Amino acid sequence: MSGRLTIVGLGPGDDKYLTPEARAALDAADALYGYGPYLDRVPQREGQIRHASGNRVEGMRAREALNEAAAGAHVAMVSGGDPGVFAMASAVCEEIEQGLEAWRDLDIVVVPGITAMLAVAARAGAPLGHDFCAISLSDNLKSWDLIERRLDAAAGAGFVIALYNPISKARPWQLGHAFMRLAQHLPATTPVVFGRAVGRADEAVIVTTLDKANEVTADMATLVIVGSPETRVIPRNGKTPLVYTPRVAAKVTA
Amino acid sequence: MSGRLTIVGLGPGDDKYLTPEARAALDAADALYGYGPYLDRVPQREGQIRHASGNRVEGMRAREALNEAAAGAHVAMVSGGDPGVFAMASAVCEEIEQGLEAWRDLDIVVVPGITAMLAVAARAGAPLGHDFCAISLSDNLKSWDLIERRLDAAAGAGFVIALYNPISKARPWQLGHAFMRLAQHLPATTPVVFGRAVGRADEAVIVTTLDKANEVTADMATLVIVGSPETRVIPRNGKTPLVYTPRVAAKVTA
Repeated sequence: MSGRLTIVGLGPGDDKYLTPEARAALDAADALYGYGPYLDRVPQREGQIRHASGNRVEGMRAREALNEAAAGAHVAMVSGGDPGVFAMASAVCEEIEQGLEAWRDLDIVVVPGITAMLAVAARAGAPLGHDFCAISLSDNLKSWDLIERRLDAAAGAGFVIALYNPISKARPWQLGHAFMRLAQHLPATTPVVFGRAVGRADEAVIVTTLDKANEVTADMATLVIVGSPETRVIPRNGKTPLVYTPRVAAKVTA
Repeated sequence: MSGRLTIVGLGPGDDKYLTPEARAALDAADALYGYGPYLDRVPQREGQIRHASGNRVEGMRAREALNEAAAGAHVAMVSGGDPGVFAMASAVCEEIEQGLEAWRDLDIVVVPGITAMLAVAARAGAPLGHDFCAISLSDNLKSWDLIERRLDAAAGAGFVIALYNPISKARPWQLGHAFMRLAQHLPATTPVVFGRAVGRADEAVIVTTLDKANEVTADMATLVIVGSPETRVIPRNGKTPLVYTPRVAAKVTA
């Protein structure tokens, strides 16, 4: 039997986002690997073995899953959101490139999922409606200087910006510094959307402006979208406003 | 009865990408609006009315759907991929902002979907594994100068770049010009992924390099991902190579 490793995106924290492809891949696996809280979202199935691990051991988790697949098993690695966006698919590829030759012979399948910025954008309206970028604010794996350079480049060229991993206990100041940096390029009135735990019972979506963004509390489960100079807010009576970026780039000219 | 407009992302061209949330929204609608080929992907249901339209009448389609919702119907607008990424959600918001006051009182719900860059990235490995951006190459609604400025900013700061709407009969030269522009910033060996019709019978994924990207044929159904200087290719015996961008930014320094 030839081994297979399927890296499965669960989407945000509710089964309504789980695609049929992802569900089938989870059901077909002999063994599941993943960060504990993600594994907890997958229904138990008899005969299927689970290997839960912490959220800072991606490399080790990937190597263990590759080893089991190389022994002939059908292994699924679960990932929140989309596995290709700041998640497990890159970690697995890193280990394949640096690891055993046999790992290159495995069937490697990536099953896409709804990534956080799409779910948060949907809740707010259409803030990603024009050119946009995604930046991880974690400076564990890159320098803060590089992050600032990317914030400058993105804001200066009129991209809407989705900020992943905005804050954690070990990284308390980065999000505030990012807002200050972006304020050098963008109007104080630029819309900012905070989306936390979308699809879960404790979901919270907050719309504010760049000059007040520091007043909103964020955590590891938060995804932040900072608009471009084109992004607009439509107020509505008794309803949350709609935030969107028009398809026409009228203000930003070359 | 209060009206509702739900803008539903179908994902790429196969039902395996259709989320349970999207399926439920389609089933609950009294009327469906959308570009003909997208509507054709939704199973017929008795009593549900369909309004198919061409691919260049987004504004008119949005106004018709809003009018029917304002009359009390539950209307679904279908969109390929994710409705918030170069698709119908922005078009609907534009019409709401400029249109009848009553449209602001409607329940507007956006149901996210798997957007093309996530599906193509999954097929290739994990090319979007680090900071990335999405740029539409259509210069119908923005100037080509602005597109070039964004290509410069993104490549210069080390973003992986997903190119939507790379080419059409009316826009035959833009993709080639984009590759030439990017070549001013990126090594000739930068990996480039062409993904066409992912999830459909005629799916094709091609991995090449920036200096040879012009030799690959693209069309309206193609999504192109241009790597960063960090993006790597893992060759494999008898299998398609894996393309991925490591989580660590080693080469690009501030």
